[in-house]
Amino acid sequence: MKYDSSVDINIAKAPTSKIDSVDFENLKFGHIFTDHMLVCDYEDGAWKTPEIKPYGPIQLDPSAKVFHYGQAVFEGMKAYRDDNDQIWLFRPDENFKRINKSSARLAIPEFPEEYFFTGLEELLKLEKDWIKKGFGNSLYIRPFVIATEPGVLASPGTKYKFMIICSPAKSYYTGEVRVQISERYSRAADGGVGAAKAAGNYAAQFYPTNLAKDAGFQQIIWTDANTHEFLEEAGTMNVFFRVNDTLLTAPTSDRILDGVTRKSIIALAEANNIPVEVRRVTVQEIVDAAKAGTLKEIFGAGTAAVINPIQGFGYKGEKYELPKLTDTYASFFKNKLMKIQYNLDKDQFGWRYLVKE
Amino acid sequence: MKYDSSVDINIAKAPTSKIDSVDFENLKFGHIFTDHMLVCDYEDGAWKTPEIKPYGPIQLDPSAKVFHYGQAVFEGMKAYRDDNDQIWLFRPDENFKRINKSSARLAIPEFPEEYFFTGLEELLKLEKDWIKKGFGNSLYIRPFVIATEPGVLASPGTKYKFMIICSPAKSYYTGEVRVQISERYSRAADGGVGAAKAAGNYAAQFYPTNLAKDAGFQQIIWTDANTHEFLEEAGTMNVFFRVNDTLLTAPTSDRILDGVTRKSIIALAEANNIPVEVRRVTVQEIVDAAKAGTLKEIFGAGTAAVINPIQGFGYKGEKYELPKLTDTYASFFKNKLMKIQYNLDKDQFGWRYLVKE
Ligand SMILES: Cc1ncc(COP(=O)(O)O)c(C=O)c1O
Ligand SMILES: Cc1ncc(COP(=O)(O)O)c(C=O)c1O
Repeated sequence: MKYDSSVDINIAKAPTSKIDSVDFENLKFGHIFTDHMLVCDYEDGAWKTPEIKPYGPIQLDPSAKVFHYGQAVFEGMKAYRDDNDQIWLFRPDENFKRINKSSARLAIPEFPEEYFFTGLEELLKLEKDWIKKGFGNSLYIRPFVIATEPGVLASPGTKYKFMIICSPAKSYYTGEVRVQISERYSRAADGGVGAAKAAGNYAAQFYPTNLAKDAGFQQIIWTDANTHEFLEEAGTMNVFFRVNDTLLTAPTSDRILDGVTRKSIIALAEANNIPVEVRRVTVQEIVDAAKAGTLKEIFGAGTAAVINPIQGFGYKGEKYELPKLTDTYASFFKNKLMKIQYNLDKDQFGWRYLVKE
Repeated sequence: MKYDSSVDINIAKAPTSKIDSVDFENLKFGHIFTDHMLVCDYEDGAWKTPEIKPYGPIQLDPSAKVFHYGQAVFEGMKAYRDDNDQIWLFRPDENFKRINKSSARLAIPEFPEEYFFTGLEELLKLEKDWIKKGFGNSLYIRPFVIATEPGVLASPGTKYKFMIICSPAKSYYTGEVRVQISERYSRAADGGVGAAKAAGNYAAQFYPTNLAKDAGFQQIIWTDANTHEFLEEAGTMNVFFRVNDTLLTAPTSDRILDGVTRKSIIALAEANNIPVEVRRVTVQEIVDAAKAGTLKEIFGAGTAAVINPIQGFGYKGEKYELPKLTDTYASFFKNKLMKIQYNLDKDQFGWRYLVKE
């Protein structure tokens, strides 16, 4: 444990577990939650001691700010069980730092590091049985903060709730993914909240994504709102392009989430002599590469799916198909990353984090 | 009533009223709520019959989509009591149309017109005592929709809650308001959700507004995210500039809310021979006008404050003060609008809407 806990978390155990009723072979993503949740309230200018209690509904006033002004941020991370029944996290410091960066941008008070780690680890120890052995199995962890204060004045609240809920996950095959490159809608503006995991960023994508689905695509790759000429990221994933043998990805900015998977892939590419260019990528060069046959791969990178290969894309009414390679960067990185996550490979970057008993 | 109600709203009356404990002379905006609320659930592809029940907390699963993905929209409107104890709304059709426009953009199912009007009017009849006589007194009405479905998959929910809550309001003097013209932060992007009353748009403004407050301003006037050269709107108000005797305001767009107060002012200006130009307004021309002494007024326009005169602004480190006029457009329009709202003037545009007993 990161902290020899001086934080005395109040734990109220669930009288019974629902684990036996769960079909772990057929898990839909983010649908079933474990027996407990962590709750920590912010009041009178301070975060109170976190509590772990049975998972269940929360009560809020209908005027709570989160309902009206979307003052809410979240994180997504995973816990993995290795063959020796040890539980691991992957770069949790990054998630901790990022939730506070998101909070700062949304005028939410930052959460103390010791509470985050102690609370998370106590919760994981309690839910250990929910973390199943096997490459691809994991426990998806969702820390989030919501503004709970009643009142419809449009200003930051003085009351918040930090929570962690957990959902068992399997690695899943999403089918072939084709994406639409955005020409009209946009996800984020310079000077906006695109770089934060702010709740409102996600609902804003639902309608354009529905339109993309109607047009035969599964997701959107967002472009810059000003010109729609530069490729940015997908709804919940950063995006990589392989042109010949070079990997391209957009730099992070105000508009792009600084993904943990993305930065891990960049580090792995550099360590494995795969040329990687972090720079603005134009739609035109990707279209040209697709036409010339030099566009070998596109893939998304994010905690939930790790790597999501993209088989084709649509742009200005044209559809482009990518070649079906056997040796892909996508599977190379996915395998490398997962082997580190599941303690099956050496951890040269110090990314693994043991949840001690 | 707009509809001879075939909608049978289920009404559960509060056993007691808290109205006697309310100090109507000292109301903070949006702080106290009336005895009842309207609730209507969307499930299995349809809105169920609305219910009116005692105002009180709602229970949601911690994984409800509104907490994680900000899938939520709202409206703001007011009810007024005239000297004959009749209750009036102001252009409620505009709010009804706008909440559904916002919902469509956020992939929320649209709410039926009959439920909206019948529900609202039944609620207002029950809360009639909360609507106090007197110019400036009103009942602020907050319809809103939230995605209630449990599950952390980032996709639109299939369960929603439409609610109306009400808060008694007084016309208030906010003190002198000075605004900062945004140079770095932005509120909305082309192709984004700025034109919707989407919850996430508001939390996104809290942090930049805090910075503006630290710099001695009360609010921000947002500029376009691309160039920061064009003036758009304030956090919860559209903005008007008076240069010499001409009124200027930005056209609505993807990025700007189509305010009811704004469009009413434009109509009143035209009817009263006040020259009004709806066009892109540059920061530079306003700075130049301020320097030349031709910038006579700036004011915000929105339901909550009706008209909010702005006494000065800051831009690129410079502060600009506006003259203190005695005959202002701001007070002209505020008076005109309020007289229509309170049934003290003829209603040449048919904006008033009687809530029938
Ligand atoms: C908008 C967005 N981009 C990218 C990512 C990928 O980030 P990470 O690799 O840290 O999961 C996510 C999801 O977490 C996201 O929400
Ligand atoms: C962003 C924004 N602009 C403008 C307005 C003013 O609109 P209306 O006059 O309809 O209240 C509001 C408030 O409702 C708003 O939230």
